[in-house]
Amino acid sequence: MATMSAEAPTCDRLWTNARLATMASSVAAPYGTVEDGVVAARDGRILYAGPRQEAPAFRAAETIDCGGRWITPGLIDCHTHLVHGGDRAHEFELRLQGASYEEIARAGGGILSTVTATRAASEDALFASADRRLSALLAEGVTTVEIKSGYGLEIEAEVKTLRVARRVGRERPVRVRTTFLGAHAVPPEFKGRSGDYTALVAGPMLDAIAAEGLADAVDVFCEGIAFSPDETRAVFEAAQAKGLAIKIHAEQLSNLGGAALAAEMGALSADHLEYLDEAGVIAMAKARTVAVVLPGAFYFLHETQKPPIEFLRRHGVAIALATDANPGSSPLTSPLLVMNMACTLFRLTPEEALAGLTRHAAQALGLSDEIGTLEAGKACDLAIWDIERPAELAYRIGFNPLYARIWNGQ
Amino acid sequence: MATMSAEAPTCDRLWTNARLATMASSVAAPYGTVEDGVVAARDGRILYAGPRQEAPAFRAAETIDCGGRWITPGLIDCHTHLVHGGDRAHEFELRLQGASYEEIARAGGGILSTVTATRAASEDALFASADRRLSALLAEGVTTVEIKSGYGLEIEAEVKTLRVARRVGRERPVRVRTTFLGAHAVPPEFKGRSGDYTALVAGPMLDAIAAEGLADAVDVFCEGIAFSPDETRAVFEAAQAKGLAIKIHAEQLSNLGGAALAAEMGALSADHLEYLDEAGVIAMAKARTVAVVLPGAFYFLHETQKPPIEFLRRHGVAIALATDANPGSSPLTSPLLVMNMACTLFRLTPEEALAGLTRHAAQALGLSDEIGTLEAGKACDLAIWDIERPAELAYRIGFNPLYARIWNGQ
Ligand SMILES: [Zn+2]
Ligand SMILES: [Zn+2]
Repeated sequence: MATMSAEAPTCDRLWTNARLATMASSVAAPYGTVEDGVVAARDGRILYAGPRQEAPAFRAAETIDCGGRWITPGLIDCHTHLVHGGDRAHEFELRLQGASYEEIARAGGGILSTVTATRAASEDALFASADRRLSALLAEGVTTVEIKSGYGLEIEAEVKTLRVARRVGRERPVRVRTTFLGAHAVPPEFKGRSGDYTALVAGPMLDAIAAEGLADAVDVFCEGIAFSPDETRAVFEAAQAKGLAIKIHAEQLSNLGGAALAAEMGALSADHLEYLDEAGVIAMAKARTVAVVLPGAFYFLHETQKPPIEFLRRHGVAIALATDANPGSSPLTSPLLVMNMACTLFRLTPEEALAGLTRHAAQALGLSDEIGTLEAGKACDLAIWDIERPAELAYRIGFNPLYARIWNGQ
Repeated sequence: MATMSAEAPTCDRLWTNARLATMASSVAAPYGTVEDGVVAARDGRILYAGPRQEAPAFRAAETIDCGGRWITPGLIDCHTHLVHGGDRAHEFELRLQGASYEEIARAGGGILSTVTATRAASEDALFASADRRLSALLAEGVTTVEIKSGYGLEIEAEVKTLRVARRVGRERPVRVRTTFLGAHAVPPEFKGRSGDYTALVAGPMLDAIAAEGLADAVDVFCEGIAFSPDETRAVFEAAQAKGLAIKIHAEQLSNLGGAALAAEMGALSADHLEYLDEAGVIAMAKARTVAVVLPGAFYFLHETQKPPIEFLRRHGVAIALATDANPGSSPLTSPLLVMNMACTLFRLTPEEALAGLTRHAAQALGLSDEIGTLEAGKACDLAIWDIERPAELAYRIGFNPLYARIWNGQ
């Protein structure tokens, strides 16, 4: 760094002797790598992230020598269902013992068991169980997490879920984005009347949630076993009338054209996408809708149809990754394992996998200006790793090389 | 417990208010469960493990209230290659970028890269890198680990590897069993002369290792790309002449009848077994040879042929699980994830998966009298978990509910 002078800019913290995977598109090297890098933070934001030799001579209140370790952007888990009651371990066991779906339903299994447990749980109990799962994410470098509702399926329980999600953001050192997913499943009270339930979701339920400012976005599970494209559109129109962003669970089990529908309405992301076709990919590319792929659910459900990674690449659709942490189809709380699964099961490269949990995940949350890369002006969310090269993050399985995690500069 | 009396037996530590998954065959309930259990330890061994109501009135130097948590036997990882130089993250990345095997070999990839790195590494460096991987295992409740050589492939480097493995057992709170796997691959110096290399392994190399007492067992990779059944037999005969137990890597990529050969010679275990046929299963059943299945390698290598779990069950072959932690085909250091993979990929039940990392893993190491269940007389190796039912251990993915780990009563 240049010699210190009276005009040297001040900063709160300065990380030196680091290798940076900035993940910034503006840096040409793979991973946006800066081999001999420094990061400076002031008031929780990145003041500078780049080569030591080009850095101003900061006057830092605190300087941290990273000993040559790698710094990446803090990880972003852009699709989770962290807040819910109960778990489905018993159902998992029954199924492996050969129980039929009917037997499992009789034993109280399936999504309804989670709905029942979520409705019955207090806010404190929901917070405590979500907090435990969140801790697993934070331990692997997560600094931003999206949390969906969708196991309440009635006004009070959906409101409760999202209040707990907001509370996670207030009480833990993590940035939380909330998504209202009232249209996750048709609850038993509305069996055979999904249209009526959709009207409740798009009407009074959304009203109650918007009135408290509980949701940053609205999501719909568009699928034969859930909501039709027409029902999906109705929910999205109501969301947009309230100024909320939209997202979709689409093409997980079949192709209903949900991703294209959402893209045409300007959705931030379409998620799952195993059955997405090229027309859907093109619609997403046109709208810059992010493809969020969820290898945990693919793995847990023994899916064999893979999302069309090659089409997504060819048409330049940004690919994000997430845990999809949920009790029924992805009881997974390791973003590092998601990276490995994306490489092993979907043949993403390690660099694509890391982009999927940083730059592209930020885009999937509409937060590209705020987080996702190491660039001046963004929030100073860092993960510092004891690794020799970034590919190690995707290569190892069930191993956590996190050395330190910094959120908002702290 | 009965009223304390002068004749009350003394113990060093007493764990109370626990649910026990004893995994003992003598307890009829699934998981050998005792709902209201206590465990007493004296001099590092289990003095009593069973129902509170039937327990003697111990005078304990220390009593630990487990708050209703579950206690299982400490986990046993019965097949690892923890001690090796380098990693293969770069190769993983090159392959996902589309590099051919030739290009990877030219870039120094493949098993030879690990051999080169292992030969070049000091004992201290090997220890430090193995120790980091070991720490990941211990954090998930492992109390016994098997460590193989097999990346030295020359006398000095194989001796060095096993010395480091022994050192792990001296310096860390874990029971280590070592296995000499000189017959892991034919080293470049012996290209096209696998018979000559086998003679070295079975002769001077084994002599050197046995002279220092560095191996508890001897293993061979019996496969088209490694060693033939005849070569395997030659190594096993030399091992047995020295009084060492034998194990085999067999039927991973094809069926050469290695498992049956090893079983007929009295092997403790045959490992991998994707291509094992029913005749091999029957031979193993007759010899009480344990089937060690390794879902991590299956997953990482995109194998589609699954081990014959149904045949193994039908013929009563004990199934163990292990991480196979190694840099090339299973860079995996999470026994809990192995349980999930065994259930998800191979359809084991959660109870079979837990037996695979406890009772059956002990048998695969010839340590059934010493570890693997919560029974009086065995070493007091415990894992205490923050869970509501044992199936949770296999159900969750990338989540560690370990509350405490006890090794030899401490
Ligand atoms: Zn989801
Ligand atoms: Zn192995």
